[in-house]
Amino acid sequence: MSAGKLIGVGVGPGDPELLTLKAMRTLGEADVIAHFAKAGNPSHSRAIAADHLRDGVVELPLYYPVTTELPACSDGYRDTIAAFYDGAAERIAALLISGKTVAVICEGDPLFYGSYMHLHARLSPRFPTAIVAGVTGMSGCWSAAGLPIAQGDDVFTVLPATLPEAELARRLGEADAAVVMKVGRHLAKLRRALKTSGRLPRAIYVERGTTAEEKMIPLAAKLDDEAPYFAVVLVPGWEGRP
Amino acid sequence: MSAGKLIGVGVGPGDPELLTLKAMRTLGEADVIAHFAKAGNPSHSRAIAADHLRDGVVELPLYYPVTTELPACSDGYRDTIAAFYDGAAERIAALLISGKTVAVICEGDPLFYGSYMHLHARLSPRFPTAIVAGVTGMSGCWSAAGLPIAQGDDVFTVLPATLPEAELARRLGEADAAVVMKVGRHLAKLRRALKTSGRLPRAIYVERGTTAEEKMIPLAAKLDDEAPYFAVVLVPGWEGRP
Repeated sequence: MSAGKLIGVGVGPGDPELLTLKAMRTLGEADVIAHFAKAGNPSHSRAIAADHLRDGVVELPLYYPVTTELPACSDGYRDTIAAFYDGAAERIAALLISGKTVAVICEGDPLFYGSYMHLHARLSPRFPTAIVAGVTGMSGCWSAAGLPIAQGDDVFTVLPATLPEAELARRLGEADAAVVMKVGRHLAKLRRALKTSGRLPRAIYVERGTTAEEKMIPLAAKLDDEAPYFAVVLVPGWEGRP
Repeated sequence: MSAGKLIGVGVGPGDPELLTLKAMRTLGEADVIAHFAKAGNPSHSRAIAADHLRDGVVELPLYYPVTTELPACSDGYRDTIAAFYDGAAERIAALLISGKTVAVICEGDPLFYGSYMHLHARLSPRFPTAIVAGVTGMSGCWSAAGLPIAQGDDVFTVLPATLPEAELARRLGEADAAVVMKVGRHLAKLRRALKTSGRLPRAIYVERGTTAEEKMIPLAAKLDDEAPYFAVVLVPGWEGRP
């Protein structure tokens, strides 16, 4: 028997209509559909793709043992999450060895800051793999905001809000356009860094872009520093428009 | 009569199957389909979307008066291209005033380094607009290469190859992950900047990612410095994998 195939399938930023034709076909053809979720919660990524799963298809839910309970830089977090990905990869390997095609549903794009990458790194040396590119969460956010983000010779940078304040300010000042991800509890610090770098007046805050719960507001007009983990801040470039 | 609507429709990186369900529906519903092309050439973006245009739908081809014949930083280029976008916007405005829905086909994502943005900037203050986010060209390239690009707290940067060599080298050295666009005749300079910054061994060269003409090779193994304008170089981050 020949080995199966592992496929990372991007399903886009949240609006189920932003799924590609290739993702739809790939999900419809797979033997097994795997998806990540926080333990005890329904999978966001599965919800996006739900209309395209075959009735009765085998599903493999993969529940994160921790999400934001431990700092991501701690040894405890790294060890726990590495063991989780090791275990998930072994469960998928067993299916691949038995000849199954396993599609892993990925929010956004599979190889851009996604959990799928941890499975891909472990399994791609041993098994055939393929990737179905998806619309990223950030594209969904700037499209929902109608905000041209970068053009021409702009330098565009994606920054995690977890960076130290001084580094955030320096990098925001050096980029023409920026997206700051993982805003969550870092919003007060990010706001100061945007102010220091002179970029606060252009910054737009977006929560759950492209979904029914979407919220967006110029950051300067947002009165509190509450934000969910997946909120983003957009700083458009393109100041010299022809 | 109420005004029509301008819609920027992302059709993805090249593979027609990487078009979204929303793009397909929007193209099928529009009164007029506009698309950019180099004068005398068929439109790449129209070719991606061809299967989804209604028989007999009105099309508005927009032909660039110049592409790479003049340096993009020259006054001649800026004046010529600005006049072209002004004229295209006025033709579309006339359609919008008459109540038509005009969909502009955009390769990749409409608001990420795309020509549509020039129409959007001119028309969005006057007319209703909407954006259909698309899979970017760079997502298509790293997916085709099976190359996890950025993860965790990586800083990710998009750089135009037009930057001076020293600036390219400095910015490549400061990013965890990078995509260099508009490689074209800048490949020899980019190669030196990658070497200076220590990133050459990880760099992957990709031409026409996700299309039938796709080519990819580690840049260090590419023996010449020939490259088309739309070639990209990918430098993956994520060196500390859990």
